[in-house]
Amino acid sequence: MPFDPEKILAMEPIIVRQTLTKRDTILYALGVGADELAYVYEEGLSALPTMAVVMAYPGFLWQKPELGIDWKRVLHGEQFTELHVPLPVKAMLRSETKIEAIYDKGAAKGSIAHVVRRIIDEETNTLLATTTTNTFLRGNGGHGGSQGKPPAPHLVPDDRAPDEVITLTTTHNQAAVYRLSGDYNPLHIDPEVAKAAGFDRPILHGLCTYGVAGRALLKALCDNNPARLRRMDARFSSPVYPGETIATEIWHEGDGRAAFRSKVTERDVIVLTHGYAEFL
Amino acid sequence: MPFDPEKILAMEPIIVRQTLTKRDTILYALGVGADELAYVYEEGLSALPTMAVVMAYPGFLWQKPELGIDWKRVLHGEQFTELHVPLPVKAMLRSETKIEAIYDKGAAKGSIAHVVRRIIDEETNTLLATTTTNTFLRGNGGHGGSQGKPPAPHLVPDDRAPDEVITLTTTHNQAAVYRLSGDYNPLHIDPEVAKAAGFDRPILHGLCTYGVAGRALLKALCDNNPARLRRMDARFSSPVYPGETIATEIWHEGDGRAAFRSKVTERDVIVLTHGYAEFL
Repeated sequence: MPFDPEKILAMEPIIVRQTLTKRDTILYALGVGADELAYVYEEGLSALPTMAVVMAYPGFLWQKPELGIDWKRVLHGEQFTELHVPLPVKAMLRSETKIEAIYDKGAAKGSIAHVVRRIIDEETNTLLATTTTNTFLRGNGGHGGSQGKPPAPHLVPDDRAPDEVITLTTTHNQAAVYRLSGDYNPLHIDPEVAKAAGFDRPILHGLCTYGVAGRALLKALCDNNPARLRRMDARFSSPVYPGETIATEIWHEGDGRAAFRSKVTERDVIVLTHGYAEFL
Repeated sequence: MPFDPEKILAMEPIIVRQTLTKRDTILYALGVGADELAYVYEEGLSALPTMAVVMAYPGFLWQKPELGIDWKRVLHGEQFTELHVPLPVKAMLRSETKIEAIYDKGAAKGSIAHVVRRIIDEETNTLLATTTTNTFLRGNGGHGGSQGKPPAPHLVPDDRAPDEVITLTTTHNQAAVYRLSGDYNPLHIDPEVAKAAGFDRPILHGLCTYGVAGRALLKALCDNNPARLRRMDARFSSPVYPGETIATEIWHEGDGRAAFRSKVTERDVIVLTHGYAEFL
């Protein structure tokens, strides 16, 4: 089928339901390397705010033939998460996912799909979180597409040293644990698939790196109180390999706002850029 | 209620049903520290034979007031596992658990409860595995109890050097991952509970250590083919702390039989004794 942005934008929202258990909440925390009792022990359990990105997860959206998308060239570009309330540790969840815009960057560069997912507690009908993804459809540009362009990314003030640096480790099996939260893309575990995609070995999920950075923000900005983190945005700039160390550099910007970016210390490579956080 | 062995032995079998998923099978493998693709990747997935000990797990049996058992003094003593067929990676399971004997060791020493669990694939009505536990009821002895005594434990030929030693590591969060397979005893995660039980910090599940030793047996005896391990018996002699290294010493005894024991290398303490394995 040919790629038709108008048709994709006219699609009904994708509805996904999930029964979230404490076991799922703990498994997500272990997947992003947390070991604090507050996140891994069912007594007094709290959910990490970044768990929003896996709640009622609709899966990889781009592989359906009828969309006409060159799905092997799709890249997760940016992730924004807004927490409206502290996340529950168990709940009946519903998510509503909508592709809201497809920005054309030209035939050579492809498009950016702007996808919004609203995550709702079905029992209380509370909107828990809104996650927004900018995905690069590298093989589908030059079609005209949506008007406008995605919001400008936050600028990290890297002309001065960060105010805080939080360094966290990952384990060699980090991706194997993380994927049990729902993203079973074989790129993150199968050496053959990773090689075919141009990597020496399986890479960590970008959203796992994002979760590790979220833990760093909680430590640096929220006194480890997950209810205080209200927003977290970042752009994925380079992959992380399981077992590497992630240093998150944080700049205070006043009024409950901060900029951040994350580096792999072993290779001195920036893996998350344009980071922006809001906290209470 | 007073302790009444006759009444306990007359109880109906405890029936537990579980829908086992590939996610559960992978999570068990990660819980005992496996990282081989064959055990952690849903494509071509195999189940570790020791997973039998958590399949359709009935939970901690001893806490019901009507049994009259001093449950805080209960200790898991020995674990025997017989694999009748290779374990499935997903299945509808049923287990039937029966307390088959309560051997009296006298008022000072307590009793040994001999508990047998049969694990059945409900769709094919196949008996998959039989797991047998000898549990020490340290506070309930001197009652007369069952005739006879438990089978004599296997003797490890430690007058000669082992034929093979397989050394495997555990991680500091090993118990946190392992417990998601169903044994949520807080002793393995809560520092306060661990202290109250006389330990410096939370200890690893004995059955997690058993799973690590099972991985060593697969490597040494079965060319890492899980279908080849048919029996694995061991006695728990001392706890392991998460993060410690477990060296399993193996003696070949011919005809698909071997003896083994496991040590924590950091403290040179034997943690599993009287190990016995049968393999194809």
